[in-house]
Amino acid sequence: MVFVTRKSHFNAAHRLNNPNKDEQWNNDIYGKCNYPNWHGHNYTLEVTVAGEPDPETGFVIDLSRLKKIVKKKILNPCDHRNLNTDVPFLEGIIPTSENLVKAFFKQLKDDVEAASPKGSVLYSVKLFETERNIAEYCPYKTI
Amino acid sequence: MVFVTRKSHFNAAHRLNNPNKDEQWNNDIYGKCNYPNWHGHNYTLEVTVAGEPDPETGFVIDLSRLKKIVKKKILNPCDHRNLNTDVPFLEGIIPTSENLVKAFFKQLKDDVEAASPKGSVLYSVKLFETERNIAEYCPYKTI
Amino acid sequence: MVFVTRKSHFNAAHRLNNPNKDEQWNNDIYGKCNYPNWHGHNYTLEVTVAGEPDPETGFVIDLSRLKKIVKKKILNPCDHRNLNTDVPFLEGIIPTSENLVKAFFKQLKDDVEAASPKGSVLYSVKLFETERNIAEYCPYKTI
Amino acid sequence: MVFVTRKSHFNAAHRLNNPNKDEQWNNDIYGKCNYPNWHGHNYTLEVTVAGEPDPETGFVIDLSRLKKIVKKKILNPCDHRNLNTDVPFLEGIIPTSENLVKAFFKQLKDDVEAASPKGSVLYSVKLFETERNIAEYCPYKTI
Amino acid sequence: MVFVTRKSHFNAAHRLNNPNKDEQWNNDIYGKCNYPNWHGHNYTLEVTVAGEPDPETGFVIDLSRLKKIVKKKILNPCDHRNLNTDVPFLEGIIPTSENLVKAFFKQLKDDVEAASPKGSVLYSVKLFETERNIAEYCPYKTI
Amino acid sequence: MVFVTRKSHFNAAHRLNNPNKDEQWNNDIYGKCNYPNWHGHNYTLEVTVAGEPDPETGFVIDLSRLKKIVKKKILNPCDHRNLNTDVPFLEGIIPTSENLVKAFFKQLKDDVEAASPKGSVLYSVKLFETERNIAEYCPYKTI
Repeated sequence: MVFVTRKSHFNAAHRLNNPNKDEQWNNDIYGKCNYPNWHGHNYTLEVTVAGEPDPETGFVIDLSRLKKIVKKKILNPCDHRNLNTDVPFLEGIIPTSENLVKAFFKQLKDDVEAASPKGSVLYSVKLFETERNIAEYCPYKTI
Repeated sequence: MVFVTRKSHFNAAHRLNNPNKDEQWNNDIYGKCNYPNWHGHNYTLEVTVAGEPDPETGFVIDLSRLKKIVKKKILNPCDHRNLNTDVPFLEGIIPTSENLVKAFFKQLKDDVEAASPKGSVLYSVKLFETERNIAEYCPYKTI
Repeated sequence: MVFVTRKSHFNAAHRLNNPNKDEQWNNDIYGKCNYPNWHGHNYTLEVTVAGEPDPETGFVIDLSRLKKIVKKKILNPCDHRNLNTDVPFLEGIIPTSENLVKAFFKQLKDDVEAASPKGSVLYSVKLFETERNIAEYCPYKTI
Repeated sequence: MVFVTRKSHFNAAHRLNNPNKDEQWNNDIYGKCNYPNWHGHNYTLEVTVAGEPDPETGFVIDLSRLKKIVKKKILNPCDHRNLNTDVPFLEGIIPTSENLVKAFFKQLKDDVEAASPKGSVLYSVKLFETERNIAEYCPYKTI
Repeated sequence: MVFVTRKSHFNAAHRLNNPNKDEQWNNDIYGKCNYPNWHGHNYTLEVTVAGEPDPETGFVIDLSRLKKIVKKKILNPCDHRNLNTDVPFLEGIIPTSENLVKAFFKQLKDDVEAASPKGSVLYSVKLFETERNIAEYCPYKTI
Repeated sequence: MVFVTRKSHFNAAHRLNNPNKDEQWNNDIYGKCNYPNWHGHNYTLEVTVAGEPDPETGFVIDLSRLKKIVKKKILNPCDHRNLNTDVPFLEGIIPTSENLVKAFFKQLKDDVEAASPKGSVLYSVKLFETERNIAEYCPYKTI
């Protein structure tokens, strides 16, 4: 099994706030991530596809196609945007890194697998909110 | 002459917009950096002090004091904040990286030089808005 | 399953030496890592927790709580210390990266899992001794 | 189970081209990677071995022995070479990252496992063609 | 004076060889960089412009214009190309990093300065051939 | 003027302590850097040479010769050593980064300039003690 990863970047504003909770709860849980006027990040996104290399091309997936899918489905809607207010597929989702990787995986899965040779799968989506805070969604790793 | 540099990080939202110009001008000049609902960055800040090491301590400046000054004067007001609306010393300043490094230098100069042995100076302030876009203010480098 | 990772740093001295073996054996096995007067590293530590995001907070684990646990259990005892002589929980352990990740995992497991929503687990501990030499302990990855 | 990783670097030229296909096919599939006069990369290679640390040494594998094996089996034949024309063990292989990690794994497996304490295995080979394009071969991760 | 830097990347093949010298001389001087079938690098290029920020835009130079100039004048002719054989403006130049930064500076200067507000200058061109080998051309730094 | 830089790494133990001062003074000035049983760092060293490229070789200095000089004069005596007790040329020097860059510059200057074409000079020595704490000695940059 070979795993190929495409790394990309986008810059966005966000704020952590659960609108179903009061301000006290939000401050207790989210601290400065709950500041009302937003903050932002240079997000780094890693998308990994798993499969067997095609014998004719040597590709698990053509990375230039993967790059285009990531651009269309994630970067175009998210880059230089506000993740709380501007991105249709994130509506109603608190933009923690955990929730973002699950939403991005769902957003990418069909297009990525349609562009892959038979049997390749979207394996994981990993997001670096900062150098130090990272989240990954991978339905194939278990505990 | 020895140059010591302390690197730090903060995350903030901003938007590039000159309120004295109309929306057409702002879109032409700033493109997606002018999107109305903000975006943001993981800023990396490098502050450099130049001088001769003190013979007793071996320090140009005690980096733990420099760290505290940077925290008090830059990180506390800017981290997890909106650079257009939340930071008193940036009021009226369009938060391009060029303008930020000039404002940060002015904000730091007196405290840094008061904490340095005689003759040391604040040499430069460098800001990485992203890995690829960088600005530096240094009054001692000439063309 | 979502995996969240918190990265941190500490600086420490160490030396590789098995006191139950003679100097010849130690030199043969450890080479310059056995030099008697110590050497040291900027260690980078990655702690990963696996679980389902809590529906109210969107967190697998509150990273600010994880950060505090790592600080209390690992960074405070190890940072700017000698791993052979100064750290109670490493007593009797040769501080290879392999042994360190196992000891760190054991040191973190209870506190991390007590701070996590039901069902989240400490998934792995990864240590970069240098940019090029890395060890990871993960009881959930098998061969 | 502990996983130890050794990172190394080499610089090489290559070109993506399937000689059994015509130029039109190659241009469609490989684009600028098919340019006739070669291009090249600073490749970063990560080799990971999995096992239990030896109780006497604290090593899963002596990283200085692993370093020598990687140098002999991969770096010496590949560094500053043309991957399409100069490397005997890559003959007949289109040097995509996917094909390279499979070939490197095969090239390393016997020597690495002979140098490891009983029960340790070559776990994975990961290759960074650029910062953004990465491939990994790991027979132990499944989907 | 404010200095703004735009970082970019390209991948290319090259070989160090002085065609006016015999093979013995070339092997003695260039070693494995003289191997006949080329090798290559992921080059990182930093282009720095110095000037005063424009009061209306806050820009020393519009980085999106600088990005386009670098793409047109350097990346398009060099990326995925052979620097010895494919790039018209490098004809007759041995592609050491030192020679490349001088050639790139010359190639960029007029377009960059035409796109800058009055008084801004192309300050330096810096090239990372690898993480460890770097060259910079800057006519304004003196010894 | 072209500037070429060679980056290298070494790992060492050290402690900040002025033996002419009492323990109270040392604790006040150096804090945890004064802990008695040493700590350590992965040091990154950048050595920069300035000059005109030689017309026949295209080199300001042959980087493989520079690499050998840095290895002989700095890495061999310092790597895996204790900077306070093991390095003859650092005897009597408190190993702050500021003092180290001055000592390293002095240690390198004659050999580097003897290996350079006429007119090239050792321009600067820069030392990263950590990612965040950096010192540079450059006699050609002024304030």
